[in-house]
Amino acid sequence: MNKKIIKIINPNSSKKITKEIDTIAKNTANFNTKIITTRYVNGISSIENYYDEAICIPNILKEIKKESKNKEIKGYIIACFGDPGLLAARELTKYPVIGIAEAAMHITSLISTKFSILTTLPYCIPMIQKLINTYGFKNICCNIHSINLSVNKIKKHTKELIKKIEKKCQIIIKNDNCNSIILGCSAMSPLSNYLTKKLNIPIIEGISSAVKLIETLISLKLFIN
Amino acid sequence: MNKKIIKIINPNSSKKITKEIDTIAKNTANFNTKIITTRYVNGISSIENYYDEAICIPNILKEIKKESKNKEIKGYIIACFGDPGLLAARELTKYPVIGIAEAAMHITSLISTKFSILTTLPYCIPMIQKLINTYGFKNICCNIHSINLSVNKIKKHTKELIKKIEKKCQIIIKNDNCNSIILGCSAMSPLSNYLTKKLNIPIIEGISSAVKLIETLISLKLFIN
Amino acid sequence: MNKKIIKIINPNSSKKITKEIDTIAKNTANFNTKIITTRYVNGISSIENYYDEAICIPNILKEIKKESKNKEIKGYIIACFGDPGLLAARELTKYPVIGIAEAAMHITSLISTKFSILTTLPYCIPMIQKLINTYGFKNICCNIHSINLSVNKIKKHTKELIKKIEKKCQIIIKNDNCNSIILGCSAMSPLSNYLTKKLNIPIIEGISSAVKLIETLISLKLFIN
Amino acid sequence: MNKKIIKIINPNSSKKITKEIDTIAKNTANFNTKIITTRYVNGISSIENYYDEAICIPNILKEIKKESKNKEIKGYIIACFGDPGLLAARELTKYPVIGIAEAAMHITSLISTKFSILTTLPYCIPMIQKLINTYGFKNICCNIHSINLSVNKIKKHTKELIKKIEKKCQIIIKNDNCNSIILGCSAMSPLSNYLTKKLNIPIIEGISSAVKLIETLISLKLFIN
Amino acid sequence: MNKKIIKIINPNSSKKITKEIDTIAKNTANFNTKIITTRYVNGISSIENYYDEAICIPNILKEIKKESKNKEIKGYIIACFGDPGLLAARELTKYPVIGIAEAAMHITSLISTKFSILTTLPYCIPMIQKLINTYGFKNICCNIHSINLSVNKIKKHTKELIKKIEKKCQIIIKNDNCNSIILGCSAMSPLSNYLTKKLNIPIIEGISSAVKLIETLISLKLFIN
Amino acid sequence: MNKKIIKIINPNSSKKITKEIDTIAKNTANFNTKIITTRYVNGISSIENYYDEAICIPNILKEIKKESKNKEIKGYIIACFGDPGLLAARELTKYPVIGIAEAAMHITSLISTKFSILTTLPYCIPMIQKLINTYGFKNICCNIHSINLSVNKIKKHTKELIKKIEKKCQIIIKNDNCNSIILGCSAMSPLSNYLTKKLNIPIIEGISSAVKLIETLISLKLFIN
Repeated sequence: MNKKIIKIINPNSSKKITKEIDTIAKNTANFNTKIITTRYVNGISSIENYYDEAICIPNILKEIKKESKNKEIKGYIIACFGDPGLLAARELTKYPVIGIAEAAMHITSLISTKFSILTTLPYCIPMIQKLINTYGFKNICCNIHSINLSVNKIKKHTKELIKKIEKKCQIIIKNDNCNSIILGCSAMSPLSNYLTKKLNIPIIEGISSAVKLIETLISLKLFIN
Repeated sequence: MNKKIIKIINPNSSKKITKEIDTIAKNTANFNTKIITTRYVNGISSIENYYDEAICIPNILKEIKKESKNKEIKGYIIACFGDPGLLAARELTKYPVIGIAEAAMHITSLISTKFSILTTLPYCIPMIQKLINTYGFKNICCNIHSINLSVNKIKKHTKELIKKIEKKCQIIIKNDNCNSIILGCSAMSPLSNYLTKKLNIPIIEGISSAVKLIETLISLKLFIN
Repeated sequence: MNKKIIKIINPNSSKKITKEIDTIAKNTANFNTKIITTRYVNGISSIENYYDEAICIPNILKEIKKESKNKEIKGYIIACFGDPGLLAARELTKYPVIGIAEAAMHITSLISTKFSILTTLPYCIPMIQKLINTYGFKNICCNIHSINLSVNKIKKHTKELIKKIEKKCQIIIKNDNCNSIILGCSAMSPLSNYLTKKLNIPIIEGISSAVKLIETLISLKLFIN
Repeated sequence: MNKKIIKIINPNSSKKITKEIDTIAKNTANFNTKIITTRYVNGISSIENYYDEAICIPNILKEIKKESKNKEIKGYIIACFGDPGLLAARELTKYPVIGIAEAAMHITSLISTKFSILTTLPYCIPMIQKLINTYGFKNICCNIHSINLSVNKIKKHTKELIKKIEKKCQIIIKNDNCNSIILGCSAMSPLSNYLTKKLNIPIIEGISSAVKLIETLISLKLFIN
Repeated sequence: MNKKIIKIINPNSSKKITKEIDTIAKNTANFNTKIITTRYVNGISSIENYYDEAICIPNILKEIKKESKNKEIKGYIIACFGDPGLLAARELTKYPVIGIAEAAMHITSLISTKFSILTTLPYCIPMIQKLINTYGFKNICCNIHSINLSVNKIKKHTKELIKKIEKKCQIIIKNDNCNSIILGCSAMSPLSNYLTKKLNIPIIEGISSAVKLIETLISLKLFIN
Repeated sequence: MNKKIIKIINPNSSKKITKEIDTIAKNTANFNTKIITTRYVNGISSIENYYDEAICIPNILKEIKKESKNKEIKGYIIACFGDPGLLAARELTKYPVIGIAEAAMHITSLISTKFSILTTLPYCIPMIQKLINTYGFKNICCNIHSINLSVNKIKKHTKELIKKIEKKCQIIIKNDNCNSIILGCSAMSPLSNYLTKKLNIPIIEGISSAVKLIETLISLKLFIN
């Protein structure tokens, strides 16, 4: 049996983040799924506002378009917690396309009616609030918080950083009375397992969620022509 | 490797529907998932109002409770398109519990921003509307329609019935300008593949969606203690 | 003239709470209303999560069903601040059925556009938020708070407890800028008069509200067949 | 025992409508309630837009203000289906003030999760929609319809008119799948009993609802200072 | 070319506020706009609750009605941050009528997706929240705050007062993470330029916004008959 | 006095549409405004889905970025009725950026509480519904309709086409009971004056609205740094 390929498009240029995304995805994927992860080689190193998103979208779309005759790729993941270009991407292919923010939110809503989100910079809070409103999770999202660090500062998972995020999560759990937290940035994704164990509630990230949801859609053969 | 068991709880007493649910689930499940499907032997033959739902809920909960020491069951599906007892069920087990209505809606929202729903009796329309509001899918659900037949009339998939549902779907697609339809009753679930082929848009049912989402949650090890 | 009977169904097993509910109801009722208050003899002593609610609902429904030929009972009250089984109960009888949470909220909304709610455990906050959303009181409910005590600890109205609740209400009034507070648990109901006098704003509980609303519906002869 | 007085303020000048409001209220009131119904002698004969509402409000407020030392009046009803001046009126007195639109809507929401409204002119439809949105009944109000006649044409309850309204209600019930209808104009109120019998579902009007709700608030001693 | 007249209706009686409104409007208006500002000579000196609003509305409407044959007046502004009588006023004239609250909110929403509002007394907070809900700005309005001073105390722009408002704005900016603030009272309007410079984000008031929007509507010839 | 320049960015490549946009803008602009209209020379001839939007956005942003040192350009208009790239564009300049969809909607909401929208293809209806939801105009937008023609078929304003649009508008007015209509495509904009006269209600287009709103923001000196 041929493996089904899921192509993950990291819209930033960071090799480190791309590698981590790839690792998480491969660890999550079914044995008959093959993961291919690309990055935006000539793109920016992090995506932290609407401009950054807008600029990386054409590359995301190009990455999908160039596979239009590739019958082995059965689904696409946009690996940025703003889901840039999602609806446009879906117009390009009959195969499923999923963003990691929507993936994390849908998965979380299946286990929790009171989750909070932790993102990078304060500027991103209203950006994520907009996603929450659009996707319909307003009533079950308690709050959106920021660790007040840029993606580039979060990329290196120093002990100090991990401690800081862990503490922030503890405060969020106490104040929001939430029972799960979504990590709102792919650069934080590798910390989700560690934090889940330490904090004793699910700390969810979007890449693994997206991989499983794409596998689900492929398996259910749900294609919009 | 031991198979992971998903226990499907059909809250009605119908052998026919239970058999069909089991078949769909087994056809959908991963090779390392084992499906067990139960019915409410002393229950009612169909669930078509809030009273029916309320009455079947304790049995659903009993079915979960009695497995509390069974370490092989890794998730539960409530196989009725009203998701009866869902939040109560989740309080009984750290393993995921999913309703087929929420499953179908979440899955559909990943591929479509304009879906409609076809249910059995007109009485069920506001019941499903309430689910749509609660789950946050108000902005992407075009409309909810009824085929105006009780579950017991829908159970037998006569040519006539299938024709009738097919025609109704065609009218829905035309009037609602939707690009997918959710079948809002487990008794219609076996028709989804046929209808998808005939109508050329995804006609989604909840059982297969729920199986894949439970497998996803199991795989992601997302448990709320 | 025969008295009109309102049957109050306390879904928990507590004799003390049942007695208090009965007293409040009798003090509130019109001279031509007769109050009958039942408890769930074999039920649980308090209802504090979705499982508790689900388990008590069939008994609530049985209490209504067994009166189906009793022409003197003209209405029913579900005396638990989660309104368990409300819509199911309404399907069983043409006479009105009211939950004490909806009763308190509707009554409060007639005198206030900024009320808060005080409930028992933090776990109940999102449960009550869901009711607020469903009933449409989102824009006028400032906030929902918890006294962080279980029903069983609230049952005994010690001086210490009353002081604690009074203080909490003062803080709520100050922080929320609200002009009335709903007591979100029948075990707190007996304190409403005392608190109203002490705090100088209406501290509303659901039992008396429900009695008057049922009398209203009976008097208006509003029955859904 | 002194009777408690409810003062009903009809903001239009029509003697006929005032008389009918008074009759409905007296037929509904408890034996120990006294009804006083005023009209706006120098006002307009019907209220059909925002200007009409705005102009009658100061007179409504004057009618309340002039009773400020009258200790026998225990509540006020604004008898116009737009609830003009409601929040302003509440600022003038510690006694309850209720509008007939909110009264009808709250009462209906206690028995129905799918009601429709029938009003006079098409112009009033968005006016009533605004009330529905403000009061939080958006999810349970199916639709708002107009009989396409001005208040003055509706005032005389000719056989022809009654037939016309009855037929319109039948169409509404069929198309909206609603299980109750609110009559959205005091001039239609006297028809509610007749229509309820003919149509076999509750056809609700606001005056009787408001009388019972005021009696309820008086009885519960719920006053905002 | 004849100048186009915009008539500004200050619904309170304050000469000082009227003068300031007039000055702001004249400083903002195009060279071919003529500003006429009236006050409610026999009215109240400030508008701080629903009663005050209701009482001033007939005068607002009279001010519009008396110009019905004046072909030079091309638009009206209601200069009170509650937009009293707005929809009624629009029924009286085919020329545009704008309230300063809606003006400030629409203008702000064109430059900001996260604004806060600063009003006078705490009592006004839910009044403004109601406007925000009605006008549809719920998702982009972070918060509404009060300086806890009545209009009459705000009228005199002492150094102390200005300092107090400036400090309050700094706290709002910090806590709400907003990028603009609307001054929710015409008595604060003259401070907007000063505060904008000091705080380095737009501090928006409604009079100038309303003047430009009326000029816009006049220029676009958008009249509802 | 130097004229203030507003740069209009037409994100499609059509010379005809660009010329018409320029003409409308120049006819609307103040005497001291200078209009510069650009098109996306190497872009697509019409924008009719999310992909088209995504692809044209970087060019829109480039058009703004290249003026970063041009001190004469005081504002930007994105002349496509999907407001592509709006929030990203605002991050690039302290000067105001307005989309023609938001412009038309804000302007219309100042004169109407019941408007409908007419767009090109059925595919665009949910796209525009999303804008309505995001911008907060859900409660005052009656409906969104499609003329069922692509932009390229609408570009040529043949007698036949104009008749078709006029007829469609008449049907919309009758069915929706709306009192204004927004033309949801820049290719229909030149017809607004003719249709306004023929249909006797405001038929609003976004270019002229956007020009006046930019002039307003410039005049009010409202810049977000």
